[in-house]
Amino acid sequence: MEALTAKEQQFMNFLKEQNAYKEALTTLQWDSHTQIPRGGVDNRSEVVGFLSGKLQQSETSDRMKEYLDDMKATSENGLIRQVVEECERVYEKSRKIPNKTYQEYVTLCSKAEAVWEEARKKNEFSLFEPYLSRIVEYNQEFAELWGYEGNRYNALLDNNEPGITVETLDVVFPALRKSLTSLIEQVKASPVKADVSLLKSPFPIERQKALSESILEMIGYRFENGRLDTSAHPYSFAINPNDVRLSTKYIEDDFRSSLFSSVHEGGHALYEQNIGRNLMGTPLSAASSMGMHESQSLYWEMFVTADRGFWETNYDWFRSFAPDHFKSVSLDDFYVALHDVKPSLIRIEADPLTYSMHIMLRYELEKALLHGDVKAKELPHVWNELMQEYLGVVPGNNRDGVLQDIHWSSGDFGYFPSYTLGYVYAAQLHAAMKQEVMFENCLQTNDFLSIRQWFTEHVHKHGKTKQPLELLKEVTSEELNPDYLVQYLTKKYGEIYQF
Amino acid sequence: MEALTAKEQQFMNFLKEQNAYKEALTTLQWDSHTQIPRGGVDNRSEVVGFLSGKLQQSETSDRMKEYLDDMKATSENGLIRQVVEECERVYEKSRKIPNKTYQEYVTLCSKAEAVWEEARKKNEFSLFEPYLSRIVEYNQEFAELWGYEGNRYNALLDNNEPGITVETLDVVFPALRKSLTSLIEQVKASPVKADVSLLKSPFPIERQKALSESILEMIGYRFENGRLDTSAHPYSFAINPNDVRLSTKYIEDDFRSSLFSSVHEGGHALYEQNIGRNLMGTPLSAASSMGMHESQSLYWEMFVTADRGFWETNYDWFRSFAPDHFKSVSLDDFYVALHDVKPSLIRIEADPLTYSMHIMLRYELEKALLHGDVKAKELPHVWNELMQEYLGVVPGNNRDGVLQDIHWSSGDFGYFPSYTLGYVYAAQLHAAMKQEVMFENCLQTNDFLSIRQWFTEHVHKHGKTKQPLELLKEVTSEELNPDYLVQYLTKKYGEIYQF
Repeated sequence: MEALTAKEQQFMNFLKEQNAYKEALTTLQWDSHTQIPRGGVDNRSEVVGFLSGKLQQSETSDRMKEYLDDMKATSENGLIRQVVEECERVYEKSRKIPNKTYQEYVTLCSKAEAVWEEARKKNEFSLFEPYLSRIVEYNQEFAELWGYEGNRYNALLDNNEPGITVETLDVVFPALRKSLTSLIEQVKASPVKADVSLLKSPFPIERQKALSESILEMIGYRFENGRLDTSAHPYSFAINPNDVRLSTKYIEDDFRSSLFSSVHEGGHALYEQNIGRNLMGTPLSAASSMGMHESQSLYWEMFVTADRGFWETNYDWFRSFAPDHFKSVSLDDFYVALHDVKPSLIRIEADPLTYSMHIMLRYELEKALLHGDVKAKELPHVWNELMQEYLGVVPGNNRDGVLQDIHWSSGDFGYFPSYTLGYVYAAQLHAAMKQEVMFENCLQTNDFLSIRQWFTEHVHKHGKTKQPLELLKEVTSEELNPDYLVQYLTKKYGEIYQF
Repeated sequence: MEALTAKEQQFMNFLKEQNAYKEALTTLQWDSHTQIPRGGVDNRSEVVGFLSGKLQQSETSDRMKEYLDDMKATSENGLIRQVVEECERVYEKSRKIPNKTYQEYVTLCSKAEAVWEEARKKNEFSLFEPYLSRIVEYNQEFAELWGYEGNRYNALLDNNEPGITVETLDVVFPALRKSLTSLIEQVKASPVKADVSLLKSPFPIERQKALSESILEMIGYRFENGRLDTSAHPYSFAINPNDVRLSTKYIEDDFRSSLFSSVHEGGHALYEQNIGRNLMGTPLSAASSMGMHESQSLYWEMFVTADRGFWETNYDWFRSFAPDHFKSVSLDDFYVALHDVKPSLIRIEADPLTYSMHIMLRYELEKALLHGDVKAKELPHVWNELMQEYLGVVPGNNRDGVLQDIHWSSGDFGYFPSYTLGYVYAAQLHAAMKQEVMFENCLQTNDFLSIRQWFTEHVHKHGKTKQPLELLKEVTSEELNPDYLVQYLTKKYGEIYQF
């Protein structure tokens, strides 16, 4: 970075204060998800609420405004100008929400997360419902305060996926749903049948842990800059690029849960660990968008470690961790079983063909909640109706239905579409990457460094200096194009299921 | 608590903000000691420095001053008046130190802790020396800013042990040293010999962990309000009374390290977990003093779980965790071995007779550093000279000498005397407790609840509402009296070593 003027340096130091709040909050969040004793939960939400409030106060302070005005008038440093732009965006958005309201909301969400966990455990949606109602009300209020063009939901989309609107999604999603439905039908009609029971053998948690650690090291996750824990829902916690922690979930008789969620969260972590150090301590030391973040996690989970080439090279490695049972499972049967396609209840356990159906369902419900067309208490019913329509399966209880995801309890509305956009981005980036990197060769030699470096160079290192559609255009020379995803899935599943 | 007026409630809410900083800082401290990946260390010190600065700013803010003046003028609530007194003490002390200086100091200490760890690992005092020099300079400056009567060191003692002065310690410590030296000589001359090798058998870490968990549950540590981790130096981290975490240290061929440090830290935790909930969120939700804190940890470590009665009841329980080797060790031999007395190098591994010698040495060195009579770079030399004089043993390297304790790297000057005062308090409290609780019977029936409840009633629940000497007087009807400790040790070691 060019040498900073004294004023610019002061501004950067001022931002370090906000960064300190963020790092403390992420550490507390990690602790709350993976380490905190039950008795510590209650008071934690107060602490988180207070610190979040302080962060927002600082981001929207008069001092911030003075710095921004001053920097805009005087700084010619390119990075500073980008930082100012991002700070101003946050400033404008945040100051529209009264500090007290925001603090109440954060405290509410922190409590709601604990209540959600309990509700899920007890399979009692009614425990969670009043919290969800209030969270929705807050989000309705926020959308109005922020303002939006077109659909009210665009106000929330803008937080996660700037540039993406309901108007786009309402075209892309139905078309994608049609293609996916057709693929699912073709798989169903295929003579090839995946036998998932082959994968379900008691697999000691300790061995699964070693397997997760090993695959994370293979793909280039740096354990000296992170750690792997467990939580109810796998997560990644980026405290800063030098400390990016993961959590996974072990299920004794299904290694896929921990293996693929470790890789998934590891993909998020590769992004965060490789953001340019020149951005550290600024709000640009973050992912371009939630969808771009998801593109990286999905990429490693689906395009790399679920590729036929990966398993041809690494099936013996896998079997060195696995119980004896797998000695009698052929690579072909194993690979087909990994690509079982089956409409099912749980999003995070869904296969890549049915996964986006879960997302589209949530997208529709979020829009309906936000417009008041559906009330929180009606949600279990409407959820089940849509499950029937989209996937043809209906959960027998709310634990496997509306209570399965942490997002709404955390106040993460407008986030779900990013998952499917992540697929779309990933496929489009994959096609571009393959023009420069010998992908198949990489998988034959376990050369994940070349792949990771391509993504670091084109995606990771830029942090939040580029918006997702801008980044996509620069790297792939194209606008958002879901065809790459459909082509990829058609080829892959066509080969497996012979259609 | 009586109903609060609106103003009193506002004041209490204001204090909750400071409490939030404290809870975040303690959680970060716990994380730094037990969980953080190596790469995360550097940035952590900035975050801790910033939040500590914010806390101090709030404690010394004009708003705090206004609240204090207002409360003093208007509040008749007994608890509020005590809270005001404590806040005023902190306000007066803190405001004497410029905020910038304090923040630099906290950042320095946070870095110094990491450097100390490295210096200790590499056995290179020179790495740590410049940090220690600067920490001493800050403490000299602080003492002058705070002011003191008599000795400059009294300014630091007042932080940890209000009421205790150099003038007292310079009488109590030499007398105690004389009694301890005599006891050590008698043990040395005894025909009874402790065979410590009996205790040193490979003891799987997992079994040691189970043993620690079991003994902590026995003495009443609530795991739903805490957890047990590992760290280089055992510690307790009181985030709030509902979340008090412990760390211990496992040494495979010496179970004593983890067992007794778990109980020791567990004793600290029993104090913190049982502070009256009426004090929560106020600065009175803390121990009376560092020495009173140590009295509780030492009490459970030495007076309970190192008592003959405890082992008569629980030796079989212990052997259910221990390797087979212990089946051939008699209770008598085991118990004598646990009470080996031997001048040694490491404070935390020292026996109760030689332990205080380590403390007195540090006390003398701290005084000398603070007065500038000894420079940091001379410390290894002077350390070794005093070790020779007090204990007749000299470390072969600084790792086992001047680099063994974390305290100075954390800026904890004036803390060490509290350890020996903890012994003195514990013995005096023990004598008082035995007049009301059938102590021997309790050990025969593993009734630790009666013992713990006595301490909760007389010590824990009061938090910081009473100063240590005041508490001691109320509970034992006596001034500080080290004779109880000498009598206790003389009786116990006389029985074991037959003098």
